[in-house]
Amino acid sequence: MVQLVIGNKNYSTWSLRAWICLRKAGIAFDEIRIPLYEDGHSDKLKRFGPTGLVPVYRDGEFALWDSLAICEYVAETHPHLWPDDRLQRAHARAICAEMHSGFRAIRGQIPMNCRASHRRVDFSPELREEVRRVETIWSQCRQTCTVSGDWLFGRFSIADAMFIPLALHFQTYDVTLNDTASAYLQTVLDDADTKAWVADALQETEIIQECEAGA
Amino acid sequence: MVQLVIGNKNYSTWSLRAWICLRKAGIAFDEIRIPLYEDGHSDKLKRFGPTGLVPVYRDGEFALWDSLAICEYVAETHPHLWPDDRLQRAHARAICAEMHSGFRAIRGQIPMNCRASHRRVDFSPELREEVRRVETIWSQCRQTCTVSGDWLFGRFSIADAMFIPLALHFQTYDVTLNDTASAYLQTVLDDADTKAWVADALQETEIIQECEAGA
Ligand SMILES: N[C@@H](CCC(=O)N[C@@H](CS)C(=O)NCC(=O)O)C(=O)O
Ligand SMILES: N[C@@H](CCC(=O)N[C@@H](CS)C(=O)NCC(=O)O)C(=O)O
Repeated sequence: MVQLVIGNKNYSTWSLRAWICLRKAGIAFDEIRIPLYEDGHSDKLKRFGPTGLVPVYRDGEFALWDSLAICEYVAETHPHLWPDDRLQRAHARAICAEMHSGFRAIRGQIPMNCRASHRRVDFSPELREEVRRVETIWSQCRQTCTVSGDWLFGRFSIADAMFIPLALHFQTYDVTLNDTASAYLQTVLDDADTKAWVADALQETEIIQECEAGA
Repeated sequence: MVQLVIGNKNYSTWSLRAWICLRKAGIAFDEIRIPLYEDGHSDKLKRFGPTGLVPVYRDGEFALWDSLAICEYVAETHPHLWPDDRLQRAHARAICAEMHSGFRAIRGQIPMNCRASHRRVDFSPELREEVRRVETIWSQCRQTCTVSGDWLFGRFSIADAMFIPLALHFQTYDVTLNDTASAYLQTVLDDADTKAWVADALQETEIIQECEAGA
């Protein structure tokens, strides 16, 4: 059986990205949950992967780390996880890569915290700019989409896996978006797999202080 | 004709990654070089791509940003840019993703600067750990490689495109590596395309002060 090593569901955005990709691919897997930032968590994680970060995908002796690499690996056998059109697929990969290497203000200043709501922080100029960029990405995808379905490229794709956590960041901090982007955010919140993840997060009790900004 | 928007060859590591991938794929392209961090560079870059970062790949109306997304796009028509074996390919993607999202101490503290040599800085613990991690990645790839050739997975792959700049970072700061990793570093330095890039960098005269650490 495939295993996915993940962090706290309440806080671990990269774990959620790989997890939802496996769910949407219809791959059965066992979860190994390692609560992050507890004593010795780093040594524990290094038993699973060389970077000491989650997620890690395991299949017998084979271990694969990094959310994006895991998604690409899964897409090789589940090609519907990328848009069919070559240029759309390239665009999807560009926004995935942008997410993968960027949006540090969002990640640091309004972290994902599924249990929390109505949090308030001062929005720095960088944070504002990043939020506007996400809004633009979402609304452009939705407005130019010619494939049926409510995801960024119509049908669910890895681009959605990458951006789903941001809907949860935004919800906690009551971020205001334009109508098209708000509708996409609602698509995410209504998704059954996202709801299942959040329901599990609500059962967790660990607190990671750095992710409690604006409490 | 395909165009690639790049930054200063002396300093711009992400530009080099996409550039060398196109070269190794044998794709002819025009370079549009925009010197970074000069007055108005950001506005200039935003005319080419939405993130204001280089590299950007352009083909008529089609614009694709982010080095990794560009490499994946090229690999769709040039599949030899990834290892043939599925698990090797997954491993290659994991180390590419690791590079793409990490190694911030190397990027910030011992930046690429093709023109400079024998630079000296104090190595912070994070920097040391990242250098050791690169050494491990390189030597493990080389030691377990069963395909002929001196690149990380034998034949040149996108993993090499991602790690080639690091050989140049390391050379400038006289970083000591184990024998296997040193041999790989030499493979990079001896590569004709890498040499062509460095030769162009030597002709440039702009100075980016933040990338002159240890002078
Ligand atoms: N680029 C990596 C990032 C993974 C990452 O940063 N994971 C965080 C949790 S969401 C982590 O493992 N943190 C634990 C630590 O830093 O010790 C990926 O996409 O998988
Ligand atoms: N994740 C991006 C990173 C691109 C990037 O950071 N490029 C730097 C130069 S190497 C840049 O454009 N800097 C200009 C700026 O920050 O204004 C990629 O892989 O292409």
